[in-house]
Amino acid sequence: MKKRILPLISAGFLLINSYAFAADVKPAPNGLQLPENYKDWKIISQSHRIDNKTMRIIIGNEKAIEASRNGKTNPWPKGAILGKLVWKQKAEENWPTAIAPDKFVHAEFMFKDSEKYTETGGWGYARWLGMDQKPYGKNKQFSQECFACHTPVKDRDYVFTTPVSLP
Amino acid sequence: MKKRILPLISAGFLLINSYAFAADVKPAPNGLQLPENYKDWKIISQSHRIDNKTMRIIIGNEKAIEASRNGKTNPWPKGAILGKLVWKQKAEENWPTAIAPDKFVHAEFMFKDSEKYTETGGWGYARWLGMDQKPYGKNKQFSQECFACHTPVKDRDYVFTTPVSLP
Repeated sequence: MKKRILPLISAGFLLINSYAFAADVKPAPNGLQLPENYKDWKIISQSHRIDNKTMRIIIGNEKAIEASRNGKTNPWPKGAILGKLVWKQKAEENWPTAIAPDKFVHAEFMFKDSEKYTETGGWGYARWLGMDQKPYGKNKQFSQECFACHTPVKDRDYVFTTPVSLP
Repeated sequence: MKKRILPLISAGFLLINSYAFAADVKPAPNGLQLPENYKDWKIISQSHRIDNKTMRIIIGNEKAIEASRNGKTNPWPKGAILGKLVWKQKAEENWPTAIAPDKFVHAEFMFKDSEKYTETGGWGYARWLGMDQKPYGKNKQFSQECFACHTPVKDRDYVFTTPVSLP
């Protein structure tokens, strides 16, 4: 019997969330959950924000990586998840003219689903703060803040990041 | 018979190189070959070199990732490979106070094997330039240049990069 029940349970999870998530981390106020194993995702790009002295590595789940490496990012495909890992900056200890990541600030994500996230341009937004991964936002309205900030790049499917060139 | 021959051939390859490599890219002058699928490796850190206006993502093979995520990096374990992907910098088009990667410059690697790379501190060095991945260096002496530059961080097992903090 066990063998029959397991696929049914899995199918149930697929209906709720089409990605595996970290069950030990609280969901964001809009219900989005922290993707599991996001720290092992492949690279899309990086950036260095001079304005708030932070450094970012932009990573993606398999759907996002496939799209980014094949130039299929406008629009990004359904199911793509983009992740941004953010650290405070510091001078590289042994190479003073380089800047490197210091303390971890947060991990933030965009989940693409045009049918599901109609109120925020087809993307679900979520962010988890600090090393203890506290969900960001007081209530589900927090995603309007994310959406507003991303609206200037509406013609890039609301995404600031350009995937890096790779051989 | 076929079934018996294949493991022997594989064992032979393992004696030459203990990693899968991109056979269509020329080896470095010291014989090191470009690791296959390095673009899919997981992240270790990033940096922004103000001195030569380049940005880097530092990645690693599975051995390196396991070590970096468990703080076992002094020394790094045998078989660890560190990769550095380097791009010229540019202002982020839609966020002018951010700096983002522009043209791809090169991919460079450090291969850890204390018994093999005795002349260069236990690491083999190699670099492939540009989108056409041309091996760097006129002859095998080029690695002395890499080694000299890394010698100031001898007490960090010759590695400048500190793995990022992650939750």
